[in-house]
Amino acid sequence: MPKLTIAQNILAANDTYAAGIRQALAPRHIFSINFMSSPGAGKTALLERTIERLGGQLQIGVIEGDVETSADAERIEAAGASETVQINTRGNCHLEAHMVQAALDQLDLDRVELLIIENIGNLICPNAWDLGEDLRVVITSTTEGDDKPSKYPQMFADAQVVVINKIDLLPYVDYDLEKARRQVLALNPQVRFFEVSCRTGAGLVEWCDWLADFARREVTSGSKELQR
Amino acid sequence: MPKLTIAQNILAANDTYAAGIRQALAPRHIFSINFMSSPGAGKTALLERTIERLGGQLQIGVIEGDVETSADAERIEAAGASETVQINTRGNCHLEAHMVQAALDQLDLDRVELLIIENIGNLICPNAWDLGEDLRVVITSTTEGDDKPSKYPQMFADAQVVVINKIDLLPYVDYDLEKARRQVLALNPQVRFFEVSCRTGAGLVEWCDWLADFARREVTSGSKELQR
Repeated sequence: MPKLTIAQNILAANDTYAAGIRQALAPRHIFSINFMSSPGAGKTALLERTIERLGGQLQIGVIEGDVETSADAERIEAAGASETVQINTRGNCHLEAHMVQAALDQLDLDRVELLIIENIGNLICPNAWDLGEDLRVVITSTTEGDDKPSKYPQMFADAQVVVINKIDLLPYVDYDLEKARRQVLALNPQVRFFEVSCRTGAGLVEWCDWLADFARREVTSGSKELQR
Repeated sequence: MPKLTIAQNILAANDTYAAGIRQALAPRHIFSINFMSSPGAGKTALLERTIERLGGQLQIGVIEGDVETSADAERIEAAGASETVQINTRGNCHLEAHMVQAALDQLDLDRVELLIIENIGNLICPNAWDLGEDLRVVITSTTEGDDKPSKYPQMFADAQVVVINKIDLLPYVDYDLEKARRQVLALNPQVRFFEVSCRTGAGLVEWCDWLADFARREVTSGSKELQR
């Protein structure tokens, strides 16, 4: 089965890059997050709102993954990120650790305390690729339908946090929040939920405060320490 | 570059399967469509509404692609499809022609005049894989954002039809229909648009009537002929 062998080799090579990323970020006390979702669920919007709220207390660096265009990196710079790099994969449906490593080489890591990697919009493949991150966040939205966790289970099983976005649209769509949560919990009992609207601002204070606290605790309890 | 060679071999093998599918469908006068979109844009809903409207005049067979679950095939059977087969890819992010061939082996093709293949919810990879289809339809929704055509260009460049779904939600989202259309037309000047709401029914008569006419004309003008 030569195809299988090659797939294993590719993932093993990815893990080597991911380990290198962890070794680069840990002594610099940089906490890193991998944002994953379907196209249009609101990764970039959540990133903008997070930077607007936390940018005053934390230096936030962003690696923007997209198949094409640098539109998202421009939005993120406008929101006030300390450092931003755009990756265009030109057809690749997920980020890989070697791409993140190449992006890190373009960032001034002395200006980064929190690193957020926005993955490619895809609910299937990104979770298979370790990017050396400390936290995986899946964003799902009320307009996608409440059946997505059971239809795309691996993404939800591998996340520590699930953010349900677009709750302002709940009156206009057939989306059962409890049904969606039950599906996620069946896959992943330890997961933490946030319900937000990046459009109205609902729930964003809770998300941002939790994230800042969590990053600070992880960094101080482990090998990392935020330089504050 | 062994990886590249293998990718070419895989795609060449796919093309061989796709040609075999065309050879199987043409003499039976079966017109085939490939439905592609992000997760949650409304592929299954559009399929349900299409079967409800056209099922009385055309025998419709469906191949349902999903990473996991048979929930969509159950919805489609309830809507009145003549024949339905579920493919679960267990992690593969797109359908390939050999999977469609295996599904065709499970269908009674004497009961199918229109075959609709619902691809995996993914806006990146499915368009690279020829499934032997006659028509490619991309469904996009107003809640995904009007920047999706430029951010996921190949999917829109390769389609003959783009259906913009969830137009009932336009008052509640920041979506510029003209901006989205302009992006698609820049990639694909020949494309045909439909604007629909699978929830309210808006635009579905136009879509279904066009589809029935188009399938009939294609079949009678080419090597295919609907047995009506």
